[in-house]
Amino acid sequence: MNRIMRNKKIQKEKHEFRVKFLPFDTSIDIPSGKSILEAAKKASLPLKASCGGKGTCGDCIVQIISGNYKKKPSAALSDQLVSQGYALACQTEISDNLVVELPQFKELSIKSIADSRFFDEHKGNISGIYELDPPVKTIKLKLPSPTLEDNYSDLKRLERELQKKFSINNLSCEYPVLKKLAHAVREKQGNISIILFMSKEQSTIIEVVPALTKKKVYGVACDIGTSTVALHLVNLQDGKIEGTASSYNQQIKCGEDIISRINYAQKPRRLQELHDLVVMTINHLLEKAAESARVSLSDIYYASVSGNTTMIHLFLNLEPRYIREEPYVPTLNQVPIVHSRDVGLNMNHGGRIFCSPSVGSYVGGDITAGLLCTPILRDSEKISLFIDAGTNGELVVGNKDWLITCACSAGPAFEGSGIKCGMPATEGAIENIKLNQNGLAEYNVIDNTKSKGLCGSGLVDLLAELFVHGYIDRHGKFHEKKAKERIVEKENERGFLIEEGKKSFWGKDLIITDNDISNLIRTKGAVFSACSMLLKKAGLRFDEIDSFYIAGGFGQHLNVENAIRIGLLPDLRRDKFHYLGNSSLLGAYLILLSDKNKDFVNKIADKITYIELNTEPAYMNEYTAALFLPHTEMDLFPSVKKLFI
Amino acid sequence: MNRIMRNKKIQKEKHEFRVKFLPFDTSIDIPSGKSILEAAKKASLPLKASCGGKGTCGDCIVQIISGNYKKKPSAALSDQLVSQGYALACQTEISDNLVVELPQFKELSIKSIADSRFFDEHKGNISGIYELDPPVKTIKLKLPSPTLEDNYSDLKRLERELQKKFSINNLSCEYPVLKKLAHAVREKQGNISIILFMSKEQSTIIEVVPALTKKKVYGVACDIGTSTVALHLVNLQDGKIEGTASSYNQQIKCGEDIISRINYAQKPRRLQELHDLVVMTINHLLEKAAESARVSLSDIYYASVSGNTTMIHLFLNLEPRYIREEPYVPTLNQVPIVHSRDVGLNMNHGGRIFCSPSVGSYVGGDITAGLLCTPILRDSEKISLFIDAGTNGELVVGNKDWLITCACSAGPAFEGSGIKCGMPATEGAIENIKLNQNGLAEYNVIDNTKSKGLCGSGLVDLLAELFVHGYIDRHGKFHEKKAKERIVEKENERGFLIEEGKKSFWGKDLIITDNDISNLIRTKGAVFSACSMLLKKAGLRFDEIDSFYIAGGFGQHLNVENAIRIGLLPDLRRDKFHYLGNSSLLGAYLILLSDKNKDFVNKIADKITYIELNTEPAYMNEYTAALFLPHTEMDLFPSVKKLFI
Repeated sequence: MNRIMRNKKIQKEKHEFRVKFLPFDTSIDIPSGKSILEAAKKASLPLKASCGGKGTCGDCIVQIISGNYKKKPSAALSDQLVSQGYALACQTEISDNLVVELPQFKELSIKSIADSRFFDEHKGNISGIYELDPPVKTIKLKLPSPTLEDNYSDLKRLERELQKKFSINNLSCEYPVLKKLAHAVREKQGNISIILFMSKEQSTIIEVVPALTKKKVYGVACDIGTSTVALHLVNLQDGKIEGTASSYNQQIKCGEDIISRINYAQKPRRLQELHDLVVMTINHLLEKAAESARVSLSDIYYASVSGNTTMIHLFLNLEPRYIREEPYVPTLNQVPIVHSRDVGLNMNHGGRIFCSPSVGSYVGGDITAGLLCTPILRDSEKISLFIDAGTNGELVVGNKDWLITCACSAGPAFEGSGIKCGMPATEGAIENIKLNQNGLAEYNVIDNTKSKGLCGSGLVDLLAELFVHGYIDRHGKFHEKKAKERIVEKENERGFLIEEGKKSFWGKDLIITDNDISNLIRTKGAVFSACSMLLKKAGLRFDEIDSFYIAGGFGQHLNVENAIRIGLLPDLRRDKFHYLGNSSLLGAYLILLSDKNKDFVNKIADKITYIELNTEPAYMNEYTAALFLPHTEMDLFPSVKKLFI
Repeated sequence: MNRIMRNKKIQKEKHEFRVKFLPFDTSIDIPSGKSILEAAKKASLPLKASCGGKGTCGDCIVQIISGNYKKKPSAALSDQLVSQGYALACQTEISDNLVVELPQFKELSIKSIADSRFFDEHKGNISGIYELDPPVKTIKLKLPSPTLEDNYSDLKRLERELQKKFSINNLSCEYPVLKKLAHAVREKQGNISIILFMSKEQSTIIEVVPALTKKKVYGVACDIGTSTVALHLVNLQDGKIEGTASSYNQQIKCGEDIISRINYAQKPRRLQELHDLVVMTINHLLEKAAESARVSLSDIYYASVSGNTTMIHLFLNLEPRYIREEPYVPTLNQVPIVHSRDVGLNMNHGGRIFCSPSVGSYVGGDITAGLLCTPILRDSEKISLFIDAGTNGELVVGNKDWLITCACSAGPAFEGSGIKCGMPATEGAIENIKLNQNGLAEYNVIDNTKSKGLCGSGLVDLLAELFVHGYIDRHGKFHEKKAKERIVEKENERGFLIEEGKKSFWGKDLIITDNDISNLIRTKGAVFSACSMLLKKAGLRFDEIDSFYIAGGFGQHLNVENAIRIGLLPDLRRDKFHYLGNSSLLGAYLILLSDKNKDFVNKIADKITYIELNTEPAYMNEYTAALFLPHTEMDLFPSVKKLFI
């Protein structure tokens, strides 16, 4: 290396800075003077910039947590936001090591829906009835000291005591426990606390500690969604939820939907990367929930995990490729109990993980767990329909004796993705909205902050209100004359004004565009037509459904009336509808509480018959007919028809 | 640091050399000019030098494998040995990095006693009857390709096929196998080979590979002795032993007997060290056996291990302390199946380890496994007595319906330890010896080399011959007059000349001293008196014993007549005696071959009643009475008495 080259190298090194992006924990080295947007692109992070980096759209907003930076002034950002460290990534030059947060992917705050109130309200409507009998149990006992006359081995004396006092037979003891047994049974004069993992076949001692009081034992219920991951930290001695946390699935930077994740995994070491990302996501949430509840991570011995088939494959580091290749065969549907140390979850190393079983490649454990939250399996007469309208919509119809399921590709619109003003049902989301006679919006915001956007239930309301008030027609197109006063046009974008920038959190107008409306209609059309097809396959009419259960990320308060008005839900008696929220998480929680639910969910998976819609010739017709508000056949929606007579 | 100090340091560093000692794999840095003996002492290796390092006794002989050294000439070493790199450690100055082997601890070569000939000869006399049914099985099958109509998951299709074609139910699949399942079932059009680990409760898939032929599956039977470790590498498809290896237990450098090992383990990290040493010992042997048999280590899926209670605790990294503290309570007697990856054995990571169960702290799995090699459990009428005369002697008497056991501290004399001319039954050991009328020895040497020393069976012969020919009296003292011509005296040592130095391998006279003879008598006395006490506890006379089984490291050819003459064995009909050799290893091998033997050996451990001799007041009298040749009461040995009339 000659001198000039060396100097150049030194110069280059001198001017490289490290930018760390939260919540992804991704760091990248980038030359001084580059913008944060360029750094984010280099790190392959999903930071959008629809204006192409001109500083006008405001999409690429970031919050700078630490480090110095040079920013160009931008009209797209209010002074208040600037004072809080917000900046546009495209307009911010890197001149220091930085820690930058992408607020779009910040930790989510989900409301616990599985509190005692929920159970009181829904007790009669849950198949997985609340009954505290988790497979992990803590037992306190005092082992008599050995004598020359009674000098059985430590293990034998422990087994004998468990048999005598607790009638526990068929015991086994894990190897790591054996290593500490001798000291544990002597340290406090034989007073010990043990943790047992119990299955039908045998009970396994997974922990032993010298203790005068009963050792605490916690479990975690976790829903791994393609977009978001949510968990409850649960005290397994009383079943109470002591902590809750949720965030984006960090895999999101490798692709937003299942198919792109599977494709991403096809290169070497990429499956491992996806596995590591979701484990890291869960571990962050575990740490957060445990810290807020003041629980030690090593006191968590059991995890009940639900998720779609692909998510479970990635979580377990299993090849997902054949899920998307015909004939769509996963490695497994029923997952054996896995050890936490094998997967890398940050809980006790001797802990166990149960994953809810899938039905097939496109109906996963999120659905089987979700069904536990309905009475579908308790009542053999009444017909229930369960629908989880996430990015992939899954539907189940049946009763105790039979179950049929299908999946449809709905798109993530109701989860707030792919919609200009969409967002998940978290702080700042408009969850309910009404238009007054002047077309001005009245709304409720989650946590009563300024509005950041609309979550699913808000979008359903908005679409219905636009339709009912005549701002859009049955195709979803704006009535130019009627809507004229509320239509705004800015930076190549044109749409109905929901809220002015000065009143919104990001300081930007909240609008809904033509394109957004088409997107929402396609999504509701996909769900409704799948529903319709599934009933035809079952030989049922809509009015034969006794109960209609709705799960998914709509938010807390889905307005059923509005969902019917847009043709997302069929026009049935309103009291037939029940909104479940995140039933995948709730189901995982029910499994945690009682091992009976584990057997129950396995039985569900065995029983369900899967129907492939894509090979049904009639499905495309059904779908096309559903791309109207509420539907081509207005007669299917008499209560909506009435509004227009 | 001032200049002088620094210079000193540099000087010191310059003149330090590294000495690596085999077979211990221990390295030590030592200043130039020091002797190899000093290096060995610094490394705490058990290299003896009875002359105190004067170069006269020849005890500290080593073989220098590589590196330069300065040696003082020594009369104690023949030119031939010098030319082979042998040197006296005390007379050899270190002037280079060296690799030095201690020949006393070199790998042992045991003869396989468990060959087909053995089974043909002993078939009727073995409880653990040869019947090839190992718990680890290899199965070849072709999985039909999935279709849209038959798109069960990979795991389900595999389970279905195993159920349909092989009637295997209650299947589970290990997590690491799930990770490779998708590719394995597709790579060769569904042709796969799987390895199953089968227990009564369930069958676990521990391996799956794409293959057109049946995958090979091997097991290893291993005896972990306090002094030596021996193993057989076994083809589990035909039961054949394909490789055999043995060596000193590398723990020997931490103490020669059980008590000193347990004491050694009491300091921090020392238990781990002992664990690592025995695992390293086994791994070396595994590698050696696998290499010679051209077997891949990853094809070894099952290990059947036997050893005394302390050895099994150290092997499993379990606290041994309470084994030697009253009331003598081990962590466990029955060991659950352990995963090879948890222990660190160099075999397939998904492999399993079974350890033969102990009866208590002083009667271990070597004994329960050894009992499989006797018919003691097949015949409910006939009484058998089993004796394993190792460093610790263990005895069992009984039949199918009852078993009593006791242990005695016999000392390692018959294993060649603590006796000047003693050695294990390996290459160069005199295994049978006779004295002619002039007191000159005629003998057989293992592997027909020059004699290096005497193994147990040789020592029994020698003691009997000395006694019968009148060279020693009933107390074991030399008849000075009779023995005069054969007694030699050299370097403070005086003893009966067995072989002259010019004819022996090490070029040194082989002699047996007064002290050696006392040692042997104490050992045989401990065994006989324990035997006698045990029968008294059982209410039996010696002549009520139908069969007398002898195990231990005597060598291949224990002369029963001579064993009776010295009073080691009772004076019974000669055809009642059966010599088993290393029955612990053979038992481990039987367990490997058939899972029935695993159940069998567990039942044995459950059934045996342990009797503590040390608390029996009569034991000391019995012992004292046995410290004569053959015994105080000559009438107990009529056939011996006859010789002296």
